[in-house]
Amino acid sequence: MSEAKVSGARIKVGIITLFPELFGTFSETSFVGRARSSGLLELELENLREHGLGKHRSVDDTPYGGGSGMVMRVDCIVQAMESLEARWGERAHRVLLTPQGQVLKTAVAQELSTHSSLIFICGRYEGFDERVRSFVDLELSLGDFVLTGGEIAAMAAIEALIRFVPGVLGNPESTGEESFSDALDGGLEYPQYTRPAEFRGLGVPDVLKNGDHAKVDAWRKAESRARTMARRPELSQAQRR
Amino acid sequence: MSEAKVSGARIKVGIITLFPELFGTFSETSFVGRARSSGLLELELENLREHGLGKHRSVDDTPYGGGSGMVMRVDCIVQAMESLEARWGERAHRVLLTPQGQVLKTAVAQELSTHSSLIFICGRYEGFDERVRSFVDLELSLGDFVLTGGEIAAMAAIEALIRFVPGVLGNPESTGEESFSDALDGGLEYPQYTRPAEFRGLGVPDVLKNGDHAKVDAWRKAESRARTMARRPELSQAQRR
Repeated sequence: MSEAKVSGARIKVGIITLFPELFGTFSETSFVGRARSSGLLELELENLREHGLGKHRSVDDTPYGGGSGMVMRVDCIVQAMESLEARWGERAHRVLLTPQGQVLKTAVAQELSTHSSLIFICGRYEGFDERVRSFVDLELSLGDFVLTGGEIAAMAAIEALIRFVPGVLGNPESTGEESFSDALDGGLEYPQYTRPAEFRGLGVPDVLKNGDHAKVDAWRKAESRARTMARRPELSQAQRR
Repeated sequence: MSEAKVSGARIKVGIITLFPELFGTFSETSFVGRARSSGLLELELENLREHGLGKHRSVDDTPYGGGSGMVMRVDCIVQAMESLEARWGERAHRVLLTPQGQVLKTAVAQELSTHSSLIFICGRYEGFDERVRSFVDLELSLGDFVLTGGEIAAMAAIEALIRFVPGVLGNPESTGEESFSDALDGGLEYPQYTRPAEFRGLGVPDVLKNGDHAKVDAWRKAESRARTMARRPELSQAQRR
């Protein structure tokens, strides 16, 4: 963290992508935008095309052994990472977005938030040259489905991790009782209600309207456990109470 | 599908959000952009703020029973859905993005792609009024982590499902041997290599350079199985051969 403090930002995030324009509004909106404007987050987009080869700035080529599609070259990607790190003056924690990686979870996001600098490498086409894996610290997946590229996965990871950077969320309670939080033993959040008191015949549970905080609390914990058991029984093993 | 064919598009996707601008570049880029310009996909953004109440166009309020944060109102969201459907002249398949939902997987994306119209409802703040769940057909989660809103999750779902809409991917082989595909028994993809033949001392396996297609195929299947076993043993139970 010490080097990050020197630069002012708590965390530096670099994104290597062929589509930097996808991050335009994302980087200005909501917590990510606020973290940037308050100086807590430094977000840098590195256009992979600038590290491409030849007249066409190629970053991919056909696969050895044949097959459909193109494979992204290792040399261009390593050059892009080293270019970012040279400007930052530090070796970053390098994260490759790939469906073959570790699946993103709250604990992974929290761990990522502790690094002073991160690089997310977003692929396109049929995937990366295998040797790219030798140059990264983490392979990260958004889940068991296939995206067109790593960009949306990088946005998800950044949104998930930025909440854990101190100072980004105004109200520390905001991460207190949400789904997967320690306060709910890693389970799902309880039902929430707001006005109107009735909508198309559907009302609000009386316990929430009676002003008895102990009862409200007990009801919410019980509802969280019941919902987790019904929807995600594998999570509820962690709900001990 | 018959109604979708009348309108020209194979699939209509509506997104209810407070941040429609987040989808600007997304809707113009890559397969999503191409599916729109070729008329296969009709993408419509519905600004939830337009269905807000009072001078400030409020869409949220404090939770019954107390607690931090704001809860999104059921009436504004239902009105936004019905407004989209009235314009389309059909009841859409309604999908609520929430960490409490079913986790997105390839099979879910494929099922979603079969509907003629979909609505994705993107939340912000502390979550939705519980009664919203009574008005949707599917609650969908991107995984066990918390995002600032549903927008990134909606983009991921749209990218994952659009690949299964006939005509969107130029080359049908492109979904053939990727991670989680039937061709790999639901396992992870095998290693891919492209030029250069050597990079910082790392080479390419000889089998891929010998031009023996049967051997290449056998090597790839074996590598896919081995990688799946090592990284995601729970997926490899489905790999029978």
